[in-house]
Amino acid sequence: MDIKMGVAKAGIKPSGDYDILVLKFKPSVYSLVLTQNSLAAAPVIYDRNLREKTDKISAIVVNSGNANAATGEQGLKNAIQMAQLTSQLLDIPDDQTFVFSTGVIGVQLPMEKVEKGIKQACENLTELDLELAAKAISTTDSFQKYYTLSDQIDGKAFQIIGIAKGAGMIHPSMATMLAYIFTDVKIEKNILDEIMKEVTEKSFNSIDVDGCESTNDSFLVVATREGELEITEKNKEIFKEKLLEVATQLAKMIVKDGEGATKLIQINVHQASSEEEAKKIGEAIALSNLFKTAMFGNDPNWGRILSAVGQLHLNIDFSKVKLYIGDFLIYDGEPTDYDRQKAEEYLKNNTEVKIDLYLGRGDKNWTYYTCDLTYKYVEINAEYTT
Amino acid sequence: MDIKMGVAKAGIKPSGDYDILVLKFKPSVYSLVLTQNSLAAAPVIYDRNLREKTDKISAIVVNSGNANAATGEQGLKNAIQMAQLTSQLLDIPDDQTFVFSTGVIGVQLPMEKVEKGIKQACENLTELDLELAAKAISTTDSFQKYYTLSDQIDGKAFQIIGIAKGAGMIHPSMATMLAYIFTDVKIEKNILDEIMKEVTEKSFNSIDVDGCESTNDSFLVVATREGELEITEKNKEIFKEKLLEVATQLAKMIVKDGEGATKLIQINVHQASSEEEAKKIGEAIALSNLFKTAMFGNDPNWGRILSAVGQLHLNIDFSKVKLYIGDFLIYDGEPTDYDRQKAEEYLKNNTEVKIDLYLGRGDKNWTYYTCDLTYKYVEINAEYTT
Repeated sequence: MDIKMGVAKAGIKPSGDYDILVLKFKPSVYSLVLTQNSLAAAPVIYDRNLREKTDKISAIVVNSGNANAATGEQGLKNAIQMAQLTSQLLDIPDDQTFVFSTGVIGVQLPMEKVEKGIKQACENLTELDLELAAKAISTTDSFQKYYTLSDQIDGKAFQIIGIAKGAGMIHPSMATMLAYIFTDVKIEKNILDEIMKEVTEKSFNSIDVDGCESTNDSFLVVATREGELEITEKNKEIFKEKLLEVATQLAKMIVKDGEGATKLIQINVHQASSEEEAKKIGEAIALSNLFKTAMFGNDPNWGRILSAVGQLHLNIDFSKVKLYIGDFLIYDGEPTDYDRQKAEEYLKNNTEVKIDLYLGRGDKNWTYYTCDLTYKYVEINAEYTT
Repeated sequence: MDIKMGVAKAGIKPSGDYDILVLKFKPSVYSLVLTQNSLAAAPVIYDRNLREKTDKISAIVVNSGNANAATGEQGLKNAIQMAQLTSQLLDIPDDQTFVFSTGVIGVQLPMEKVEKGIKQACENLTELDLELAAKAISTTDSFQKYYTLSDQIDGKAFQIIGIAKGAGMIHPSMATMLAYIFTDVKIEKNILDEIMKEVTEKSFNSIDVDGCESTNDSFLVVATREGELEITEKNKEIFKEKLLEVATQLAKMIVKDGEGATKLIQINVHQASSEEEAKKIGEAIALSNLFKTAMFGNDPNWGRILSAVGQLHLNIDFSKVKLYIGDFLIYDGEPTDYDRQKAEEYLKNNTEVKIDLYLGRGDKNWTYYTCDLTYKYVEINAEYTT
């Protein structure tokens, strides 16, 4: 794919690290999901409006280090200025650039620095370097998050590549999830929008670090249509799975890099009566502080898992429920005589662990990802101040 | 009130401390609220059935140290046996005794010890000692929770007294809240049930330690009708406020004793469009780990509070929102220039702090209580194993 990248160290981040990313590509089909938090940031408000008006985009501009959230009228003006300046410098129509921000909230952007950074980025475009691009949008991420996939459908090659930043919440900013995925397939916007809905639900909407949705969360997929594969009604399911793979890999990296996390926990809910139910149950477990601390303590505590489920008041018959931690069947209608020591070792020795819950009331399932709750989480969120 | 008490050290608790409580009183009107967790404990299932059948009760029996939850058929038999043995020893009808349990889950009750303890308690009845009664039902509580109120309505005296145990969740047990309130007023069951509903919502259903509802939560109010005050349609509102006072005091003690908590936080939501909305918003703030850790860190972080509200997708206009921490107006449609250092000192120097949120969209309000999230919480829940 012909995607050009510009980065800059504009001085928005106190660390002096990269904080501006510009990506330029040919006018492309896209699909964009934005946070539903009512306290939406200025760039989110701008993009939400633009999304209604345009079917094609050619660029994105991102700043890290400042979320431009809770910044009122001035904040909105600054977001518009970022988008317009980028469009102008890249010589593309005004309505073909989305703008994104992540970082501290409630502070106006230092626009002089931002503008200088955008200029520098736009004037020094290079080939896309995923790792550097991921770095430029990161805030408290401890590693860069990117993923590439090359495959074939019906003998025709296609590519999907993506970058993301995760849920680092240093005071006074909040969890911001940004993800950008590019693919070279030929696809209509209505099909992409439809696929995007399910992919978002099963990836970024099925992860939890601490239950907090940010003011800036954004997920953009761009289809440049440069490749040979055309997505039709016939092959869209296969393509959807591939896009889901990339989105899920990025989502898992975000959880893995959750604040203070030592474990990525995959919660597979099986035999639910609907997908909604399965998701709700996975989420209830993922959000339970008692469960998350038990995982940190390598404690195969079935009581906390089942109680989180019971709390949903879904009238579940627990005599039909089976619960595995790893390969250990620890509840089978009643507590089992599993090897507790070995189950503890499984939790202790793995940074990626698996919970499988069988409800015995249907054939729908869902996978949810979460991380453990640790001393470090409390430290990061209680002790860091501006 | 003529309430007789029996306690015993039956050996259910490894510590050897009091673990059986029996209370006996004249056949009394009551109202009972039980957990809605689908993984309800055996005593909850027993009491739920009994509640359908009987309008008067004369006794309760409680064991601490074992929750009799997730214990199947045998557990239910044991709960029935506890109730029947108590009724028999106290010489009252079988259907006039409620049974309660709190402690570890998934382990069968040591019935020999339990029966011996109940016998000892029933054979050594004394006058009610609230502190000792509270002790006998406690598990990981760090202090005994009880409260008494004597007052007059229309020149007629009445009494309300109560005990409770809190949300201590040492592995592998879970948060169990038990509360028993006695009053000497003359009241019909339908009026008491009606009052109870609102009192429960505003007290025990408006507190959070970690968002986890237990398998054993129970709240019982007993009206012995021994006093001179009769509750009628005319004075029931005043009496409701008094009952709410006792329930709220007990509820606040439970939050204050939340695991590892250093602060009781009162969240007052004002100017909502409905009470449901106000409660939902209070709860969203109370449950936010980011907010709870900020409070632990004495950080007046308005962003985390407003973002928790925004996450509910209620379409709130934040330009109309006012937020106080203590007396500090920290957000007034936009961030204010409050004295940050003084606000931090307010949080640092008080173990009971107050948040006031004005939504500017109605005239309904609600108060929610929560505590901070600390290292100690993680330690208690991650590191203690059986």
